[in-house]
Amino acid sequence: MIKSPYLLFLGDAVDALAAKVAQGIKDWRPDLSVGQYRMKGCNADLGLADMSFDEAVTAGAKTLVIGVANRGGTISVEWQSKLIEALEAGLDIASGLHNLLKDEPLLVAKATELGRQLFDVRIPSEEYPIASGVKRTGKRCLAVGTDCSVGKMYTGLAIEKEMLKRNMKATFRSTGQTGILITGNGVPLDAVIADFMAGAVEHLTPNNDDNHWDLIEGQGSLYHASYSGVTLALIHGGQPDALILCHEPTRKHMRGLPGYNLPNLEELRDTALILARVVNPNVKVVGISVNTQHLIEMEAIAFLAETESRMGIPAVDPFRHGASRLVDALEAC
Amino acid sequence: MIKSPYLLFLGDAVDALAAKVAQGIKDWRPDLSVGQYRMKGCNADLGLADMSFDEAVTAGAKTLVIGVANRGGTISVEWQSKLIEALEAGLDIASGLHNLLKDEPLLVAKATELGRQLFDVRIPSEEYPIASGVKRTGKRCLAVGTDCSVGKMYTGLAIEKEMLKRNMKATFRSTGQTGILITGNGVPLDAVIADFMAGAVEHLTPNNDDNHWDLIEGQGSLYHASYSGVTLALIHGGQPDALILCHEPTRKHMRGLPGYNLPNLEELRDTALILARVVNPNVKVVGISVNTQHLIEMEAIAFLAETESRMGIPAVDPFRHGASRLVDALEAC
Repeated sequence: MIKSPYLLFLGDAVDALAAKVAQGIKDWRPDLSVGQYRMKGCNADLGLADMSFDEAVTAGAKTLVIGVANRGGTISVEWQSKLIEALEAGLDIASGLHNLLKDEPLLVAKATELGRQLFDVRIPSEEYPIASGVKRTGKRCLAVGTDCSVGKMYTGLAIEKEMLKRNMKATFRSTGQTGILITGNGVPLDAVIADFMAGAVEHLTPNNDDNHWDLIEGQGSLYHASYSGVTLALIHGGQPDALILCHEPTRKHMRGLPGYNLPNLEELRDTALILARVVNPNVKVVGISVNTQHLIEMEAIAFLAETESRMGIPAVDPFRHGASRLVDALEAC
Repeated sequence: MIKSPYLLFLGDAVDALAAKVAQGIKDWRPDLSVGQYRMKGCNADLGLADMSFDEAVTAGAKTLVIGVANRGGTISVEWQSKLIEALEAGLDIASGLHNLLKDEPLLVAKATELGRQLFDVRIPSEEYPIASGVKRTGKRCLAVGTDCSVGKMYTGLAIEKEMLKRNMKATFRSTGQTGILITGNGVPLDAVIADFMAGAVEHLTPNNDDNHWDLIEGQGSLYHASYSGVTLALIHGGQPDALILCHEPTRKHMRGLPGYNLPNLEELRDTALILARVVNPNVKVVGISVNTQHLIEMEAIAFLAETESRMGIPAVDPFRHGASRLVDALEAC
């Protein structure tokens, strides 16, 4: 539906983490984007060519993808004037923001006038059932994190990539806007009505071949006061056979929650297992995925070795060192 | 805010159970209703004065509250003509039905023409923020259950009643349709968008006097595969100082989930504490509320005694024996 290639809109991103949507598209579908668009004050840089809207259209871009998050905010006046420029230059716009493009009258009017399309991938595209809890065939792996934004999506995508390389049956199941923009479908779980969250996850990960793996994109954290309900719905709707613990060792406090400490990996393991066993008594924690991007190589290797020794299961950074050992652990499952 | 006092609409209730919403309003807010309105064939009777719409308005009624489940999932032609009569007599209408008043064109047209309000408490009436996790003043008690529909709402209402009797500062905070109709406001949590669940609970239970208790209506269960996400959002948005465990001892399996066993009270206690400590390290489980309606008095007393002895905290059926001992425990908190 969304026409490619893309120009990735980084806006006035406060930091690189705020642009994780764009980063994800660039990392996992590198051929999809012709360049990036940055406003004054933007503190993110994907290393793609900086382009004006006209230059991007000349380079073949069809859609401006908003690759930067705004936390419960609004589409600012500054953003709005840029987005209107993009429409005028000939681009459609795709967005996963809570604030919908279709709720912005000026954007809607301009898109209508020019025949451009506005895609809000955050809006659920269908109605979901209430979860039935009925056991499904096939295998499922869910990434659960000590915090938000610690690499759960990357972990799932890296495992899918490695499984497909080994000719295993595997499907990454997107539950957030970035994942949906990357894979082309999924459930925007944080926008689903509360009663239907677990049902949406069941719907996303239906019966499958016994040797097929769903790699379910995790969301939030059981320990994150703002989003933990979404995480638990993923665990109970996903019926995981395997859990991968995800962690970012330099995080000083829970993202967006000053004063809230991260749990340690033992706490996360024990709590996630208690809750996951409600739907699958045989669930196992099979590995640990550490986002070591803020550590130098030597520190990263030391941290992974210490963690693996302490926890007794493989601890790797799948983005830095590949997901091979995590897939070995899942194959043994 | 739904304007009171109410006229309770029992419609053509097939039996007393069908009118349980009206029964709840009558039980817990006896001063709120001037009377009841019954159609031909109604098999429910709250023991309130039967009134016409005009008589109710003369008696001061401001809102007709639909206190009965509808048959066949639609608002029948017979109901519709009565509801239009009520609007014409001068009443607003409040409803917790799945079928929204707002989706009935004739009702909407009549209400608009006459300047009356239609309240659909099943859907949120405002936008909620993302939870901030910031510690709030005042005290909060949350009921958590081994299952859905085990008496969490009644427990909270009974505690509020006993606290007010003792001249303590207390407010029952409704999170479901029946609770909202009983108290006139609240958050229909199961209809809130996933990302805003915990924020909605924070919004519902704001800063308050240090000696004020919010009695937060629980929903679902951490162990219920369909609704557990809502429960965890209540725990993390509610920042409870005290938890009351709620249980129904004759339940054979989790409500609506054949094959799923209920957790025991120890499991519920331990899991709820792990998760509640994320937002309040000092949270305590102070008591147990057992719904003994399916036990005879002797069985009930034996079950409560055994439970109290085993768990080491008061175990009572607040509906059967009063909430006095639970309030004692909260006062000591």
